[in-house]
Amino acid sequence: MDIRVRKIYEALFALEDLREVFRQAVPATATTIGLDEQEEEQISKGITRLETILKELKDGKGSPIKHAGTKAAGLDLRTREEEFININPIQAGGRLTPDARKALIAYGDGYSVCDQCLEGRLDKIRNPPVDEFHAELAEFVGMDVARVVPGARRGFQAVTSSLLEKGKGDLVIVADLAHYTELLAVELAGGIVKEVPSGSGSASRSRSGSARIITGDSVADTIERAKEASGKLPKLIMIEHIDYSFGNEHDVYGIGKVAKEYGIPFLYNGAYTVGMMPVDGRKIGADFVVGSGHKGMAAVAPSGVLATTEEWTREVFRGSQIAGDITGRIFKNKEPELLGCTLMGGTLISMMASFPAVKERVQRWDEELRKSNYFCREFLRIEDSKIVSEYPRQHTLTKVDTSDSFDRIAKTHKRRGYFLSDELKKKKITGEFAGSTRIWKLNTYGLSWNKVKYLTEAFIEIAEKYDLPVR
Amino acid sequence: MDIRVRKIYEALFALEDLREVFRQAVPATATTIGLDEQEEEQISKGITRLETILKELKDGKGSPIKHAGTKAAGLDLRTREEEFININPIQAGGRLTPDARKALIAYGDGYSVCDQCLEGRLDKIRNPPVDEFHAELAEFVGMDVARVVPGARRGFQAVTSSLLEKGKGDLVIVADLAHYTELLAVELAGGIVKEVPSGSGSASRSRSGSARIITGDSVADTIERAKEASGKLPKLIMIEHIDYSFGNEHDVYGIGKVAKEYGIPFLYNGAYTVGMMPVDGRKIGADFVVGSGHKGMAAVAPSGVLATTEEWTREVFRGSQIAGDITGRIFKNKEPELLGCTLMGGTLISMMASFPAVKERVQRWDEELRKSNYFCREFLRIEDSKIVSEYPRQHTLTKVDTSDSFDRIAKTHKRRGYFLSDELKKKKITGEFAGSTRIWKLNTYGLSWNKVKYLTEAFIEIAEKYDLPVR
Repeated sequence: MDIRVRKIYEALFALEDLREVFRQAVPATATTIGLDEQEEEQISKGITRLETILKELKDGKGSPIKHAGTKAAGLDLRTREEEFININPIQAGGRLTPDARKALIAYGDGYSVCDQCLEGRLDKIRNPPVDEFHAELAEFVGMDVARVVPGARRGFQAVTSSLLEKGKGDLVIVADLAHYTELLAVELAGGIVKEVPSGSGSASRSRSGSARIITGDSVADTIERAKEASGKLPKLIMIEHIDYSFGNEHDVYGIGKVAKEYGIPFLYNGAYTVGMMPVDGRKIGADFVVGSGHKGMAAVAPSGVLATTEEWTREVFRGSQIAGDITGRIFKNKEPELLGCTLMGGTLISMMASFPAVKERVQRWDEELRKSNYFCREFLRIEDSKIVSEYPRQHTLTKVDTSDSFDRIAKTHKRRGYFLSDELKKKKITGEFAGSTRIWKLNTYGLSWNKVKYLTEAFIEIAEKYDLPVR
Repeated sequence: MDIRVRKIYEALFALEDLREVFRQAVPATATTIGLDEQEEEQISKGITRLETILKELKDGKGSPIKHAGTKAAGLDLRTREEEFININPIQAGGRLTPDARKALIAYGDGYSVCDQCLEGRLDKIRNPPVDEFHAELAEFVGMDVARVVPGARRGFQAVTSSLLEKGKGDLVIVADLAHYTELLAVELAGGIVKEVPSGSGSASRSRSGSARIITGDSVADTIERAKEASGKLPKLIMIEHIDYSFGNEHDVYGIGKVAKEYGIPFLYNGAYTVGMMPVDGRKIGADFVVGSGHKGMAAVAPSGVLATTEEWTREVFRGSQIAGDITGRIFKNKEPELLGCTLMGGTLISMMASFPAVKERVQRWDEELRKSNYFCREFLRIEDSKIVSEYPRQHTLTKVDTSDSFDRIAKTHKRRGYFLSDELKKKKITGEFAGSTRIWKLNTYGLSWNKVKYLTEAFIEIAEKYDLPVR
């Protein structure tokens, strides 16, 4: 452990204590001093404490703090991004940027972005520039209008709730690899799912012989079968560009085309793409683009984006129509599918603060793919290890199968599958599913080349340590 | 301005830059050094920078920073809690505690609380102790089971969605002072609202002659009228303990009793109470207790709590029943009304970290009322100023009418209503609705006696400056 990481946290926390003195004190004005004698003493003591921490930081000495906040709060310090390489499959795109962390420090308080709300509409707040952010967000995903939502799932929900009628047996096309939240959104809206089989992939459409890929043709087939069985067309096609299970890339362009042909709206689930790789909803032929803030846009959870076309705006972002029977109150300005305002504080500010960096990083997606493929190539040198995802990789989330390599060790090791976790931990790698040595997932997104190379070598070293053949 | 506030921010941000070096670097292990030469230089430079800032902080000198993060992020620094007294009506209960701010620093990243998620259920995560927090949260509001939700409104939605059937004309009893999100939740679920008139208050039930109060009797009357007109009982009673408009206390105990008599479930809307004053849902006779994290529990937005009884748990927190038609996948473990997991990161951690302080502060509610009433008493010394809310106050959110005092000045002042905002700003008071000098709201919640006294004197000084008579 590099003690300096802990000293940085300790200094951050000490500064928050200093900040609290000002929060509690009567403010200074042009003619008055704010702090009283006792508060000045607190500041003075706090600064002395900071000086000590800073000296320890400089010298790389001192004892490491272990808690985030007081012990009463009961929270261990979280240092997984500072003291480890984090390969967790779902956390990579949601790491905060430095700007997001700074903005969060300043805007953590509850309704922090609402200081200058004049119209009772989150997306119309000008300072901080929430209105501008919304416009840019729509553009960013190639759509006309965007709203922020508390997670991609709430985007699915807004769409299914708008498009489906309960009790009518409305059909929704989803992938057999669909994330559970898509199915839950259909369930809540009273719909029925029709799964598109990803099969074992046909050599002509998928980039690898065996990869499971949803194609336009398979979506068309499913629509036809559904039509035949029920006598009606599905109300919605909801397919992920990259699935959570394999991290495979599905043919969203082909699906967009099929959707247009049938005249069925297409929800593009970009939970693993928006904020990570370039997404152009218009080009894809999507009617809705949904992204996740905490999964792909370096933002605090729960956050996300629901973007759509001018046409669908009228339906999904319609104004409220309910009226109070006595007061006659109506709320035309409020959008019921969003329940009015959505992300009024730290969640939104972190999305906004990360946004310049996010716009930049999607341009470097090719480099992320190169790192992902580099990792896989090297990983495959460990004999009988397999990449279960399509290969070459089109994403950084990868499913591997080490049943015939690391799991052979696990079978006789006294720590069982945890031997691998133990070894990784020693090498300061975390985020694997602890104890898994058969089929498991990892994500190299956002790791520097240095880290990717370190990571690769780490796996090879572990293999060699246990006498697994390495080619 | 006390420059030291800005220096504290500057130091916090400089530390985040240092932290980022470790985030980008290969981690140190027991046998290897993490940082390379270039990174060491960044650290060294960063520490020098910090030393300079710390010296400026100590000396109270230097130039003030104005942005949160880089200029590209486009965010002004937010200092309203450090450099001002904030009387904004809705922000008071959502100010983060120091422990929440520290936890947020450590757990800001997207899926930060999911490091050790073993069951795919947020409320079952043991480290951080999310499971324990959920149990305590239910106890805290006097209910059996609790879940966190992205804002109180999402709690309303989960309940209306569970209890109402679309297209059946299901009725929901709400107050004529109901928050718009309650009506939107009913609209989304396809229900119809029946408003309970708060009238002008009857002397026998309300604590002031003219206050608008929802009573058990008026709820019973509304139920009777609804029954007569539609031939059926309402499906839900949804009433706030304290309304957003007047901050009046409504007779939730009486309403709880009426709800039981009619056998209609009662949703207690505690957006302005949970986390601020003691709430015992069982004693009230509530079937659902909804609270807001960012409005009342010192948490990042959007956050909140939905708690219920063992009985209703089976309905509102039921497991998913949808199945994939090809894969046969089911998700019994996932709760569709929540769409599975809800607050996976900074939102939840801030609620958890603030919770010990929140549990303590609700015990000091009487003191908050004393401050609220002290403020009102003094404010009423400014002749012809009125308290529109019930008085004496039973809450800290108060509506005042200064049409016959400050607005008289506004009528001829070249800055119109903004003269009051200008004067308040000079005195470092913010959060009033800028430009309002007739009917407006303020909240004294959480302000120290020193601040409340300063605030009170500030209004009197402004009145005197403009020759308004002060008794």
